[in-house]
Amino acid sequence: MTRLLVVGGSDAGISAALRARELDPSAEVTVVVADAYPNFSICGIPYYFTGEVQPWQSLAHRSAAELEASGMDLRLDTLATAIDVERRRLAVRDARGRSEELRYDELVVATGAMPADAGIAGAGAQGGGDEGLGPEDGLHVIHSMGDTFALERFLAERRPESAIIVGAGYVGLEMAEAFRARGLRVAQLQRGPEVLSTLDPELGALVHAELVAHGVEVVVNSTVTAIERTDGGLAVTAQGPGGISRRTAQLVLLVVGVRPSTALLRQAGAALGAGGAVAVDERMATGLPHVWAAGDGVVTHHRLLGTGYLPLGTTAHKQGRVAGENAVGGTARFAGSVGTQVVKVFDLVAARTGLRDAEARAAGFRPLTVASTADDHKRYYPGAQPIRFRLTAQLHDRRLLGAQLVGRRGSELAKRIDVFAAALHAGMSVAQLSELDLSYTPPLGSPWDAVQLAAQQWERAAADETSGAPD
Amino acid sequence: MTRLLVVGGSDAGISAALRARELDPSAEVTVVVADAYPNFSICGIPYYFTGEVQPWQSLAHRSAAELEASGMDLRLDTLATAIDVERRRLAVRDARGRSEELRYDELVVATGAMPADAGIAGAGAQGGGDEGLGPEDGLHVIHSMGDTFALERFLAERRPESAIIVGAGYVGLEMAEAFRARGLRVAQLQRGPEVLSTLDPELGALVHAELVAHGVEVVVNSTVTAIERTDGGLAVTAQGPGGISRRTAQLVLLVVGVRPSTALLRQAGAALGAGGAVAVDERMATGLPHVWAAGDGVVTHHRLLGTGYLPLGTTAHKQGRVAGENAVGGTARFAGSVGTQVVKVFDLVAARTGLRDAEARAAGFRPLTVASTADDHKRYYPGAQPIRFRLTAQLHDRRLLGAQLVGRRGSELAKRIDVFAAALHAGMSVAQLSELDLSYTPPLGSPWDAVQLAAQQWERAAADETSGAPD
Repeated sequence: MTRLLVVGGSDAGISAALRARELDPSAEVTVVVADAYPNFSICGIPYYFTGEVQPWQSLAHRSAAELEASGMDLRLDTLATAIDVERRRLAVRDARGRSEELRYDELVVATGAMPADAGIAGAGAQGGGDEGLGPEDGLHVIHSMGDTFALERFLAERRPESAIIVGAGYVGLEMAEAFRARGLRVAQLQRGPEVLSTLDPELGALVHAELVAHGVEVVVNSTVTAIERTDGGLAVTAQGPGGISRRTAQLVLLVVGVRPSTALLRQAGAALGAGGAVAVDERMATGLPHVWAAGDGVVTHHRLLGTGYLPLGTTAHKQGRVAGENAVGGTARFAGSVGTQVVKVFDLVAARTGLRDAEARAAGFRPLTVASTADDHKRYYPGAQPIRFRLTAQLHDRRLLGAQLVGRRGSELAKRIDVFAAALHAGMSVAQLSELDLSYTPPLGSPWDAVQLAAQQWERAAADETSGAPD
Repeated sequence: MTRLLVVGGSDAGISAALRARELDPSAEVTVVVADAYPNFSICGIPYYFTGEVQPWQSLAHRSAAELEASGMDLRLDTLATAIDVERRRLAVRDARGRSEELRYDELVVATGAMPADAGIAGAGAQGGGDEGLGPEDGLHVIHSMGDTFALERFLAERRPESAIIVGAGYVGLEMAEAFRARGLRVAQLQRGPEVLSTLDPELGALVHAELVAHGVEVVVNSTVTAIERTDGGLAVTAQGPGGISRRTAQLVLLVVGVRPSTALLRQAGAALGAGGAVAVDERMATGLPHVWAAGDGVVTHHRLLGTGYLPLGTTAHKQGRVAGENAVGGTARFAGSVGTQVVKVFDLVAARTGLRDAEARAAGFRPLTVASTADDHKRYYPGAQPIRFRLTAQLHDRRLLGAQLVGRRGSELAKRIDVFAAALHAGMSVAQLSELDLSYTPPLGSPWDAVQLAAQQWERAAADETSGAPD
């Protein structure tokens, strides 16, 4: 009988615990959870704020009772403070300050990540520092249920009319929609030249236009340097090409990415890797005996790039499942991410998988990226909508390297990017995309699906490139 | 300069002509088309009858002018009557009865298929026979634009109030929807125990219920044996478990499948293969020198089954593209079908790819089929709908063999079946499905996508099967 301890009650930790219990019903599994909200869907928080998800309890993938019914023991409001690798003991401290040592045979650490502060003056407290503004001042982050309650309370009690969102990544965009749904004026400040910088700017521009169409003021090339209290709320100072600007709002939401929470494993002697995350191998082993790790706190094996840092919920689930399997004697390996991501922004959907041109080039590939447009279904059938593609593949061997898509909600974009993701996983060429036997009925596709039409456009451009033909 | 002749103006023929012109702009390409409607989307005809697609001209994938602009010559209303393989001549006869011989360097034959009549007495004329009822009597098929005009004229002039649809495959189901949209009473007669017999009856039953919910009278286990004229219209005699039944309607639509049109090639000496279709290799070569063939008239290479007969528009496009490429000196090979199909029936979507249990067993696999249900996106986000799965994989090596899905329209089913199709193409195992890096955002998916949850359900059932455990 294995005594398995899991630190972390989010995606990776719970996945590990569930998988261990599934494979070894005799395993004694305890999950140490820092707050009272195990297995909550952090990705769902923006939809709590739009009002689409109510009450907040429904954000739980599974309730605490369901988790316990599956045979795991939950230690809520309990902080893991130290690992004694030699003696296989985990030191914990509960909400009342009582410390305790828990014995383990195997340990899975899934402490996740914390919001980054991008070095913005005044925002230090958000990143775990001691100084700086906080929720009471109107400066919010959105990374935990605690953050969620603080923001909801602020919205309910202070009734702010204006918000500045610092950052225009996935969560920033979703929260722009949420704040608009709540009737706030929203300004979205983005450091880079275009919103959603995980996509090429040509496609980010479509998302930008969607934000503007829904009343969001978008300011790009704007690097926020400081946030201060003013009479009416908070003042945000930003540096842009036109110099320094200052704008105020009653609420500022900081969504500028995350950094891995590594203190527990670092102090136990684990090595760090890409992005300052804990280094793990494909078995999710940390190198410390009997200590496994998974989720947003560890490096990600990427099938095209090797090891990097790419914290995503999907990856955390997969890594956690592998860690849980191996902790009870399994031999699982994390097969690797291809960086698949999708976001809904108002009525648009934007998705990517694999590498963009510059990323591919930096990784030693010789890519060609080709833009194209194809309808989501036969144009003669009502409601056809264009999908904008950017396909990246290697010129000399036609190996698919990545795809980016933007289109309307309802155009089955999320699953179209998945076709590319499956093709990437299998190492297919662009030509093989055209060979796939994809489904067709006029209301839902075309005899050559849009993803195949994009592949054929890439092939034509590649042929021209190779032959040096002008067209 | 290659002089390429193509016989057939539907999917395979036009694909061949386009591909040849794309690869060899110097090729002289002539397409011989039996009617005046080249490159029409036969799959779209039901949506012309629902009224969603108007006018009928918009059913053309490309207009004749667009086709000619791409550099091909069209010979409309022209029937190919004989091939002289030795002299590389094609005999044709135009609408005015004038015969001519056309010289070719390479010939692509894509004569397609014709409606089957299932041996029903009185229906002989539909299958190309001389005897039997026809459109003027109220007996219709729906396989060409000519059929379409005849049916539309019948609906407009006779204003029938009732229809019997013989057959409940893809087109039959789509036409049930169309007739309901036109206000007709519809009875749908199906020979087998459940509608949509290309899916397992457990899933076909969901489609059956959807038909009934939209006012279609569905009669299964009903083998139509004869159709006769009566005073008010047509009488359909059927044999069922309860004996012989007879029902009448003003309109009868016969949609009981197709059989390959092979006369031209057969008379030229080509060999026939599965399903009585013309035998071709993976290059789409017929074995006759300089004669290629593609589309619904030829056999289909299936990646799991070897050679069979599975006439589908998607396959015709791919085969035509291969034939066109090879006709101008290429070395393309048809990579093979996996039998992917999808149909929308009112608000349901049903899809399949690969093999069902009995098909797999007959082909020498040792399959296990597992039913499961998973939501199309996170349940907490509004509008989540269940998707019903049946997954078939091989027990000893976990190789994926097939998937069947039924769910609501809007659940991205068409592209979810495509993820399975890509996995099948790549020869993945069920476990590898769980390893795919699929996209996730709460409005459009789950951290483990529904297709992965179905795969994990299969794995659990397989583990139980292997261990002999009771649950």
